[in-house]
Amino acid sequence: MTTTHYDIAVIGGGPGGYVAAIRAAQLGLIAVVVEREHLGGICLNWGCIPTKALLRAAELRHSIDEMKSFGITVGEVTVDVTALVQRSRKVASRLSSGVTHLLKKNKISVIEATATIGKKLKNGREVLLSDGTSISADHVIIATGARARSLPGIVPDGTAILTYREAMVPQDMPKSLIIIGSGAIGAEFASFYNDMGVEVTLIEALDRILPVEDEEVSAFVAKSFEKRGMKIMTKVKLQSVVAGPDGVTATLAGGDEELRAERMILAVGITGNVEDLGLDGTAVKIDRGHIVTDGFGATDEPRIYAIGDVTGPPWLAHKASHEGIICVEKIAGVGDGHAIADGAVPGCTYCRPQVASVGMTEAAAKKAGHTIKVGQFPFAGNGKAIALGDDAGFVKTIFDAATGELLGAHMVGPEVTELIQGFAIARSLEATEAELMTTIFPHPTLSEAMHETVLDAYDRAIHF
Amino acid sequence: MTTTHYDIAVIGGGPGGYVAAIRAAQLGLIAVVVEREHLGGICLNWGCIPTKALLRAAELRHSIDEMKSFGITVGEVTVDVTALVQRSRKVASRLSSGVTHLLKKNKISVIEATATIGKKLKNGREVLLSDGTSISADHVIIATGARARSLPGIVPDGTAILTYREAMVPQDMPKSLIIIGSGAIGAEFASFYNDMGVEVTLIEALDRILPVEDEEVSAFVAKSFEKRGMKIMTKVKLQSVVAGPDGVTATLAGGDEELRAERMILAVGITGNVEDLGLDGTAVKIDRGHIVTDGFGATDEPRIYAIGDVTGPPWLAHKASHEGIICVEKIAGVGDGHAIADGAVPGCTYCRPQVASVGMTEAAAKKAGHTIKVGQFPFAGNGKAIALGDDAGFVKTIFDAATGELLGAHMVGPEVTELIQGFAIARSLEATEAELMTTIFPHPTLSEAMHETVLDAYDRAIHF
Repeated sequence: MTTTHYDIAVIGGGPGGYVAAIRAAQLGLIAVVVEREHLGGICLNWGCIPTKALLRAAELRHSIDEMKSFGITVGEVTVDVTALVQRSRKVASRLSSGVTHLLKKNKISVIEATATIGKKLKNGREVLLSDGTSISADHVIIATGARARSLPGIVPDGTAILTYREAMVPQDMPKSLIIIGSGAIGAEFASFYNDMGVEVTLIEALDRILPVEDEEVSAFVAKSFEKRGMKIMTKVKLQSVVAGPDGVTATLAGGDEELRAERMILAVGITGNVEDLGLDGTAVKIDRGHIVTDGFGATDEPRIYAIGDVTGPPWLAHKASHEGIICVEKIAGVGDGHAIADGAVPGCTYCRPQVASVGMTEAAAKKAGHTIKVGQFPFAGNGKAIALGDDAGFVKTIFDAATGELLGAHMVGPEVTELIQGFAIARSLEATEAELMTTIFPHPTLSEAMHETVLDAYDRAIHF
Repeated sequence: MTTTHYDIAVIGGGPGGYVAAIRAAQLGLIAVVVEREHLGGICLNWGCIPTKALLRAAELRHSIDEMKSFGITVGEVTVDVTALVQRSRKVASRLSSGVTHLLKKNKISVIEATATIGKKLKNGREVLLSDGTSISADHVIIATGARARSLPGIVPDGTAILTYREAMVPQDMPKSLIIIGSGAIGAEFASFYNDMGVEVTLIEALDRILPVEDEEVSAFVAKSFEKRGMKIMTKVKLQSVVAGPDGVTATLAGGDEELRAERMILAVGITGNVEDLGLDGTAVKIDRGHIVTDGFGATDEPRIYAIGDVTGPPWLAHKASHEGIICVEKIAGVGDGHAIADGAVPGCTYCRPQVASVGMTEAAAKKAGHTIKVGQFPFAGNGKAIALGDDAGFVKTIFDAATGELLGAHMVGPEVTELIQGFAIARSLEATEAELMTTIFPHPTLSEAMHETVLDAYDRAIHF
C-alpha cells in the first residue's frame, strides 16, 4: 500500500489549522488538513461567529428600546428564538462552506477523520487516520484546539446544565439562568440572554468579572450589567449543582446559600485537546493540559509542531491564525523571524458594553516595574457617541513614562472591538505617545476618544 | 479706555478656534475666543454632529427592515420627524454647552461678537468688536470657517430650495427631493432622506458621485444608492432652477430635460468666510475665497494666522483642530515642528454604506509617479460582516511597490468611518506592508478586512 506523503499535515481545521494550510499552499508546499468534524473549527461553527450573530440580534432587539428617543416608535415586538438561532447556524454554515472553498482553491486536501501521530519516518512522520489508513508528512502541525472545562461534580446534561454548544442553540428562552464564569464567553452569554429578557445571575470565583481585563474595565462592565438587571456574584465558589425537573439548584461553598434557575451555563474556561494524539513516546511536552511550544510552534519533538488553543492561552482565533502563519513560514524558511511579541494579541468581548484591549493592564505594567503615565477619556466627552445615543464607556491608555512606549490600551463602550486595531497597529509599530498625538483622527468618530486618552496621559486632553 | 490685551485672540469658536484656544491655555497663554453665533461652530451646531444624530436615526429606521431575518418582528413603525429633529438639535446644544464649559474650565474668555482685525500695535494687533469696543492680542488667529456656496441664478429660499441648515431641520418629509452636489454633505443627505422614505435624485456635475474618493468607491456607493431606489445623474449641469408653489423645477443644461421635486438641497461646496475681517491693507493673501497660510497657519502678515475651513480644503473639522494645535504650538515655540503631512487627513462620509479614506487614491498615486501594489478585500469575505448581516463593501490599500509605504487606504461598508483611524495611525508611523502584515487584528471583527487587503496587495490574502 502506498501512503500519500505531504509536505505538511495539519491536524485540525480551525482558524489555526486551515490558515496554516493556506499559508503553506501560498509558499508552494503541499498541505493536507485532517478535520474530525467541521472545517472552521469551534470558532467558526460553535464560537466566535455564531455568537456574534446572536449578539447582533440582541443588539437589534435592544436598539428598539432606544428608538423612541429618536422619534421612532414601533408596534409589538416579537422575537422568534428558533428563527434567530437558525440564522446564527446559517451564518456558521456559510462560513464553513467558505473555508471548504478556500482550501479547494488553494489545492489543499481535506480528510475527514481523527488523526493520531504515528511512527517516525526517514522523511517525516506517519499520521494514522481513524478509517485505518495513514498518510505521512515532512512536518505535522497539531491544531486540535481546546474544549470547555467543567467543574468537579458538575456534569453538563445539555438540557438544564449547558456548555457553550447548547447555550448557543436554545429552543426557547428560559425564565432564569445562572452563568458560571465571567470571562469573555460567560459575559457574552450573560449579555445576550439578558437582552432576550432572561433573568441572569453571573457567578465568578475571582474578585471581579472579566478578570483578565483592566480592573477599571471590569468594574465598569459589572456596573453596567447590574444596571441592566443582572445579578453579579464574585468570589463565589460552588459546593454542588443539582439538576432536577424544575431546573438547577446551585449550592454555594459553605452550604448556606442556594441559587435556583431554570438553566445554567458553564463557562469556566477551556482545556487543550491533547489526548489521543499519539504523543506518548514523543518528546512533545504537555503542561497543564496544553502542548508546550517555542514562539514558532515547534515542540521538543522534531517535525511536530503545535499552534492555537492547544498550546495555551490566550485562547483566541486570531492568535491561532497568526501562530499558524509564523509556524509555516518558519518551516518554509521564510518570514521575518519574529515570534508574536508580548502584548501584541488584542482581546475582544462582544457583550454590551463591548470590551477590547491590547497589551498590559495598569496593574500588570506596574508589576512589570514600569513607571507609567495613564490616560483616560470617557465616551461621554465624545461627540459621535452622544450623537449615537451610546456614550457609556471609556478608553484608557498606559504609557511607559521614560520611553513614551504605548504599553497597553483598554476600552469599554460602543464599537470598541472595531477600534482596538488602531492600538494593535500602534503597538506593532512600537508607537510612542508622540506619534499618536500627531495622528489626525477623523471627526466625528468614536475613535477620537482614542486620541484624547493619549493626550490625557500627557495632560493635554482637549475635550475633558 | 483700557483695552484688554491677550496673548492670543481667536476669531471663531468652531473646532479650529476653540481647540486652538484650549491648547493655548494648556501652554500657559491667555486666550480669548470671539464667536458671533454658537460655540462649536458649524460643525457642532449645523454640520457633523447634528447630521450624525439624524443619520443614526436613519440607520435605526433601516435596521428595522433587517430585523426580520434575525427573527425579530415589530408592529407598525412610525417616525416622528419633529422628535427626530429635536433630538438632533438637543445633541448639538448639549455639545455646544460642553464647549462653553471646556473654555470656562480652561479660563478662556469668550466674547459674543463679530470681530474685525484692526491696526498694528507695538505689541500685537487690535481686534475691533461689533459692540464698538476692542481688544488686542500678541497674535490673532482667524478661524472663521466657511459657508455654503450657491450656484449662479439659484437662490436658496429656505423652504423649497434649501441649504444644509434647513435640510437638517425638516418639519416634515417631502415626497421628493433633488440634491445638487454629491460630495460628503450631498451624499449624507441623500442617504438620510432616502431612508426616511423620500424619493431622492442626486445630481453631480462631475463624472461620478463622491468625486474626491477613489473611483471604485464612488462606483460602489453609486450602485448601492441606486439599489436603494435613488436616481443618480452625473455630468449634469443646471440651466435654471425655479421654485413655485408645487415645488422646484430644475432645467438641465441644453434645456431639453426638466426635473421636478417638492424640495431641493444645494450641496455644491463651500467657500471661506474671508469677508469683513479687516484684511484689506494687511499682507494676508486670499486665493479663491480662502486665506493662504504656510503649514503652521502663518499668513504673510506677521501676528495674523488662519486655520481650518477658511484656509481651504479639505474642509474638515479634524483638520481645523489639528491646524489650531500646530499653529498655537508654533506661536508658543513648542511642538515637534512638523506641519500636517501630505495625505495625513482622513475623510469620512456617513452615508449608508459608509465611506472613509486616508492618503492617495489609486489614480493619484499613479499620477504622482508611484509604481504601486493594490490590495482589495470584500466584506463578503469577512466573518463578522456576515454575522452582522451587513457585508456589502470593501477595503482597498495602495502601497508603493519599491518601498512598501502605505500610500492610501479606501474603505466602503460597515463602520468604516471608525476603522480608518488604524490606517491613519499607520500612515503617521510611516508603516510599510511588513508591519501591517504582522499586526494581529482581532477576530471576529470587520477590521480583519483591513489586514486582508494588505495581504492581498502582496498576494497573500487568506480569506479570498
